[in-house]
Amino acid sequence: MEYSSSVLEKAVNELAKLPGVGEKTALRYALWLLKQSDEQVDSMIRSISDLKTKIHQCQKCNNLSDMPTCSICSDKSRNENLVCVVATIKDVMAIENTGYYRGLYHVLDGVISPLEGIGVNDIKIEHLLFRIENEPIEEVILALPTTMEGDTTAFYINKLIEGKKVKVSAVSRGISMGDSIEYADEQTLARSISLRLPFDEIYKH
Amino acid sequence: MEYSSSVLEKAVNELAKLPGVGEKTALRYALWLLKQSDEQVDSMIRSISDLKTKIHQCQKCNNLSDMPTCSICSDKSRNENLVCVVATIKDVMAIENTGYYRGLYHVLDGVISPLEGIGVNDIKIEHLLFRIENEPIEEVILALPTTMEGDTTAFYINKLIEGKKVKVSAVSRGISMGDSIEYADEQTLARSISLRLPFDEIYKH
Repeated sequence: MEYSSSVLEKAVNELAKLPGVGEKTALRYALWLLKQSDEQVDSMIRSISDLKTKIHQCQKCNNLSDMPTCSICSDKSRNENLVCVVATIKDVMAIENTGYYRGLYHVLDGVISPLEGIGVNDIKIEHLLFRIENEPIEEVILALPTTMEGDTTAFYINKLIEGKKVKVSAVSRGISMGDSIEYADEQTLARSISLRLPFDEIYKH
Repeated sequence: MEYSSSVLEKAVNELAKLPGVGEKTALRYALWLLKQSDEQVDSMIRSISDLKTKIHQCQKCNNLSDMPTCSICSDKSRNENLVCVVATIKDVMAIENTGYYRGLYHVLDGVISPLEGIGVNDIKIEHLLFRIENEPIEEVILALPTTMEGDTTAFYINKLIEGKKVKVSAVSRGISMGDSIEYADEQTLARSISLRLPFDEIYKH
């Protein structure tokens, strides 16, 4: 692209670093920002700057937090015997959105992926073991991606916890709610048959 | 979405104001920013801030510029007898990208659109007339969108310039280069027939 302004070009190059953003989208953002009030742009800049200076990882569960310990870990009404292990903080948000789960979390910050060079020491597995030793945890629920990497991570964690008198469970897999059998992929369908449950257990909920 | 950090929530809300960005994309941007180095984030913030403080509209053609007069208007090698009238600075960029045009521009900053409440005084038409009176302009090339609003604006400008001894032309319309006749839309096809030119004029270029 030919830019008549080097300031605009610089801004487009910076904005194009955002994930999934190309030059055209970055230009759209830059031209939009140009049209906004000083207050609007200042407010956006401040919020981005605050991200780097005011957000910490919860020292207990690795979730993002404005405080040393996150609001979930600090909530005394939650069940501290139950820990749900997830790959990312987005997974915490998704589960919190259901409003159904009332236990604690443990964010691994990734899954084991030899292809991407992510080994067992690159994610927070050691930290999980420390918590199991030092917190009144009775059950660990694995809610990891249903990918090869997610499964590898689940197997590895299960092996480490074996014999520690902590129950290990995993979220169920099957046909998504609202999905028709016809359009489910073959793997999911086969899995949902092999993991079938008595009628009452499926339909009473 | 449930956010464990109000700082993150604020940043997502701000980023979601960008055009075409929803909450999920804004969250993706915010989490990406969180992972970047302080230098990277500072660099992005500075470039956004510079947009508001260091970019001006060229006082001559309304193009964006770091200087009071843009690099195109200041370029003495360009033909100042020729002015290409466009709706937005993106159009200037697109035409500059061809490397073909060597005249000057006039950015209207929009087109007449009664539906959106944009009237003749909301875009830089008066400014164009002033330039025609005060600059050695011999030809005005209208390169406006091929929409009802673009056509309305073109007709209006043509009417205003009539009798001013300035030639008014418009960019041609027809089948796009590389397009097959089969897949051209009906309007374009009909137009390309009614605007047909002698063989040599089409194929000699």
